[in-house]
Amino acid sequence: MNVEIINIGDELLIGQTINTNAAWMGEELAAINMNVVQHTIISDDKLAIVNAIKLAHQRADVVIITGGLGPTKDDITKHTLCEYFNTELVHNEIALVNIQRIFKQRGRELSQLNKEQALLPKNAEMIANSNGTASGMWFKQNGKHLLSIPGVPYEMKAMMEEYILPKFVELFKLTPKHRITILTEGIVESVLATILTDWENELRTDGFALAYLPSPGLVRLRITAPVGATPHALLDKVETLKAIIPEYIYGEGKQQLEEIAGTLLRDKNQTLSTAESCTGGYIAHLITSISGSSDYFKGSIVSYANEVKINSLGVSAQDLVTYGAVSQQVVEQMALGVKNLLNTDYAIATSGIAGPTGGTPEKPVGLVWIAIATPKGVFSQKFLMGENRERTIRKTALSALSMLRKELLK
Amino acid sequence: MNVEIINIGDELLIGQTINTNAAWMGEELAAINMNVVQHTIISDDKLAIVNAIKLAHQRADVVIITGGLGPTKDDITKHTLCEYFNTELVHNEIALVNIQRIFKQRGRELSQLNKEQALLPKNAEMIANSNGTASGMWFKQNGKHLLSIPGVPYEMKAMMEEYILPKFVELFKLTPKHRITILTEGIVESVLATILTDWENELRTDGFALAYLPSPGLVRLRITAPVGATPHALLDKVETLKAIIPEYIYGEGKQQLEEIAGTLLRDKNQTLSTAESCTGGYIAHLITSISGSSDYFKGSIVSYANEVKINSLGVSAQDLVTYGAVSQQVVEQMALGVKNLLNTDYAIATSGIAGPTGGTPEKPVGLVWIAIATPKGVFSQKFLMGENRERTIRKTALSALSMLRKELLK
Repeated sequence: MNVEIINIGDELLIGQTINTNAAWMGEELAAINMNVVQHTIISDDKLAIVNAIKLAHQRADVVIITGGLGPTKDDITKHTLCEYFNTELVHNEIALVNIQRIFKQRGRELSQLNKEQALLPKNAEMIANSNGTASGMWFKQNGKHLLSIPGVPYEMKAMMEEYILPKFVELFKLTPKHRITILTEGIVESVLATILTDWENELRTDGFALAYLPSPGLVRLRITAPVGATPHALLDKVETLKAIIPEYIYGEGKQQLEEIAGTLLRDKNQTLSTAESCTGGYIAHLITSISGSSDYFKGSIVSYANEVKINSLGVSAQDLVTYGAVSQQVVEQMALGVKNLLNTDYAIATSGIAGPTGGTPEKPVGLVWIAIATPKGVFSQKFLMGENRERTIRKTALSALSMLRKELLK
Repeated sequence: MNVEIINIGDELLIGQTINTNAAWMGEELAAINMNVVQHTIISDDKLAIVNAIKLAHQRADVVIITGGLGPTKDDITKHTLCEYFNTELVHNEIALVNIQRIFKQRGRELSQLNKEQALLPKNAEMIANSNGTASGMWFKQNGKHLLSIPGVPYEMKAMMEEYILPKFVELFKLTPKHRITILTEGIVESVLATILTDWENELRTDGFALAYLPSPGLVRLRITAPVGATPHALLDKVETLKAIIPEYIYGEGKQQLEEIAGTLLRDKNQTLSTAESCTGGYIAHLITSISGSSDYFKGSIVSYANEVKINSLGVSAQDLVTYGAVSQQVVEQMALGVKNLLNTDYAIATSGIAGPTGGTPEKPVGLVWIAIATPKGVFSQKFLMGENRERTIRKTALSALSMLRKELLK
């Protein structure tokens, strides 16, 4: 089944909103083995909408439109769809009850504008919106499907997960496609590609597809099995890959390093703290973004100022002068200091020059020291992360979590 | 000038990469007053590329294609463009010299695959890539323009900024469009729309356009002046808006609350620390994501465990039992504690139930207390942030920074 995603909104066209909806929908649709042929992003304009639908139906059996359904926006999607499908808006009592429920929950009064959201096209099936006031619409005509749903991400996601995706699987008798994404860290794409040349050639000869998906600090490898291949054949390929680059692989699919490290800590009944200078709390944020992290994470000292390194973490004032804040001596003292202060089994410490200012010929922007304190001692590693502040913070956090993970696996 | 963006890549279609390129390009193109009519995202497939170009040229005078030019990918863009424009690949010495320079910089050997990147279509102008090995191509035919550039974000951005955007301004004699984005916090879209009904009606009567751009914790208002309006006319509209909702507006354009609050601290020569429970270091991360924040930010105590609240921040163990960690008493003690410990003028503290577990009928998931300690004392506020963990953390951070900003403006 070919499917096309149409996202309506000037804010998308002129980049005031990043189109995370298309990415999320693309991923979910591919996962149930629908073939995503195109994303089309257009203006909230009648002619643009009609043209996009006509062309999309030439490419795809199913078209999903998001956006253009809010109460305050200059929206014309619903009226345009009525014209396109030669139907009219009629009052839908179930939609109104839902709108009233939402307003009651939020303790607010219903406006005329909101009541109009209960008007829906006569020949469309209503798709319930459990999180918002704009209902979805499902049109079926000449064997083609067109769905129109809100662009608010959590409303869209709930409608897709609760109703649309399961309905697609049932309606189109879909079977899952065998595909896996292997996560690597600590190696750049081109070096990885060189190491994997022979493995990749054999993979392709056997009809598999491979894609390199690099992002700051990590490279994901997506392997897709040919039609008719068993899940076992795919796992065989993964095993041969793991044998070639065991040190760089840290997980698969949507797993995140902070989750993997956290699970290892929980399983071993061990605790963690962080002492962060250049990462400024970002590692603590990543760790605590995982629900349940209070099982193993006690806290962090973000020691941005040197006096905090000295007073709270017990770093030697003399060493700060002698070696500088960005040094092996200081970062190891930070790790041991926070481990001791917060009474944890493990600790991560970071100190570096995130930039863009503050670099010297001896200690350039991008220089980072990371230390890991363990129940047995402390070790550290030096990195050159490049000149971009945001990337340096991100890459430092991933490298630190990777060092911790490897230590926990020992 | 109408422009369409075509992004090539299966990783975009199936959502393994979020299309930040299209957003960035859309914003930059709109800023020089080009009219972005569509984003089209397609597969790395010859037929899809040819069809997309044909249709794009019906809608737009200028088409910019990103992606499909890397050495490791299964790319066919360059060959497809040669066929489409009826030309052939020829060796380009300038491109080769650039590739050699890049490899020398990285201390690596040139492969045959990389040398082939110096082959470029005969009838296209080469667009230099200062950050990578894939050159861009600029085709001109029958008054239409087609540009093909790499999809690697920092390579694409440098080519756009250094050459393509200035060239567009010169070539198409563009003048900037008057547009402003006003940033609001602490009020939801629908309430804002109700308050602004009269102002919005007058705005539209005068030919201006208004868009509401909500995201967790904030709503951006984009006002666009009609053609021929002066910048002064736009500023007049902003002034009347500011008079209606002064308490909700915190900035404009791309300003961020953490930057605005930081600038206020620097201007007043004041310092800040944070004590974070439910935000887990996220506020410290936002503050330190701003270059130069070490001027005013000393550090943070992420007190995820209660023992850290007691031992490091001096929160009363008895109050933790009596009132619970998520309470006015505890959050105010946290703020005063970190202000004292890190010796700062101001301090932010957060304590809440981010969820999805840990809620009770009395203290539901989403309940958050935020305290601000000032040179004069401490104050706090209670919030109900909803059930989504990620949103609660984000909204709590924005609310806290907003409370601090308002206090600094007093």
